[in-house]
Amino acid sequence: MPFTELPIEKAFTLLEPGPVTLVTTSEHGRNNIMTITWHMVMDFTPKIAMETGPWNYSFGALMRTKECAVCIPAVDLAEKAVSIGCCSGSDTDKFKKFALTPLPAHSIGAPLIGECVACIECRVLDYIEEHGIFVLTGIRAYTNCERKERRTFHAKGDGTFSVDGAALDMRSLMAGKLPPGV
Amino acid sequence: MPFTELPIEKAFTLLEPGPVTLVTTSEHGRNNIMTITWHMVMDFTPKIAMETGPWNYSFGALMRTKECAVCIPAVDLAEKAVSIGCCSGSDTDKFKKFALTPLPAHSIGAPLIGECVACIECRVLDYIEEHGIFVLTGIRAYTNCERKERRTFHAKGDGTFSVDGAALDMRSLMAGKLPPGV
Repeated sequence: MPFTELPIEKAFTLLEPGPVTLVTTSEHGRNNIMTITWHMVMDFTPKIAMETGPWNYSFGALMRTKECAVCIPAVDLAEKAVSIGCCSGSDTDKFKKFALTPLPAHSIGAPLIGECVACIECRVLDYIEEHGIFVLTGIRAYTNCERKERRTFHAKGDGTFSVDGAALDMRSLMAGKLPPGV
Repeated sequence: MPFTELPIEKAFTLLEPGPVTLVTTSEHGRNNIMTITWHMVMDFTPKIAMETGPWNYSFGALMRTKECAVCIPAVDLAEKAVSIGCCSGSDTDKFKKFALTPLPAHSIGAPLIGECVACIECRVLDYIEEHGIFVLTGIRAYTNCERKERRTFHAKGDGTFSVDGAALDMRSLMAGKLPPGV
């Protein structure tokens, strides 16, 4: 098990930068993965919004099981992440096809992805049908301590991506605004 | 006017990577700016989700005027963007304090920010009160052609940020998935 638990109050920091994510579901013993870039932090608990709909094969499993793991790949998985988004779980075992390792989660049936930098176990709190928004709550979070490559990547939506570059530290400027435990 | 119009069907590509944004409002002749990192693309038209609430002074103006400009700063504005998020429009003229230039938009009363890399004029379509989500529709978009520094930056939520680094081109891998005009 490459994952170490991360305090849940820090889980939002995995998603706030807006990385490409791989979201797993599992139903009737079949694991699936979808590539999601349309997501948003909603609060620090964390609540997470995610935009998807029936055009994604994972949608049905997500609606019925009300569970998923939001996993964050590093840049060495970029081609796999794009390819995962270009095929369907209806006829493809994506873990097998892309040589990814499903690892058991603690509180949900959907698997963690062993090769990712981090994963968040989530439950579906609500689905806002009018707007296609899933509202998730993160219940456990993990980081992969065995990984050297930790740079995440961001989709521009036109087939190009930007990789994490320089880091800026403005903690002192923001000290009064940071939530407890972060 | 440093801005050149961008086809509206490309506007979602400005936000999909998840950059820090500066969102302007204007009411009774008073311009304001809030720093927003909790946003998400909802579709290609584009519809945009943005999480905020009454704790932001801009919230009232946004609810009443139903208009805002979502502007994207480059990394040379990172300190200003953080500082804008740490003071309130209730007692501060943020354009004046941070030496930013409000430029008239075409279709909305809220101003564009002359120093930003890009801006999207938006109207509020809906406010999902239960979840604090504004649903915006982008109606015009612009890029700032005069700017050399175009790297955007991403908040981690803990006071640190990542700047855009290397670019990846996977257009050929995604060719079948790209929407028209992008």
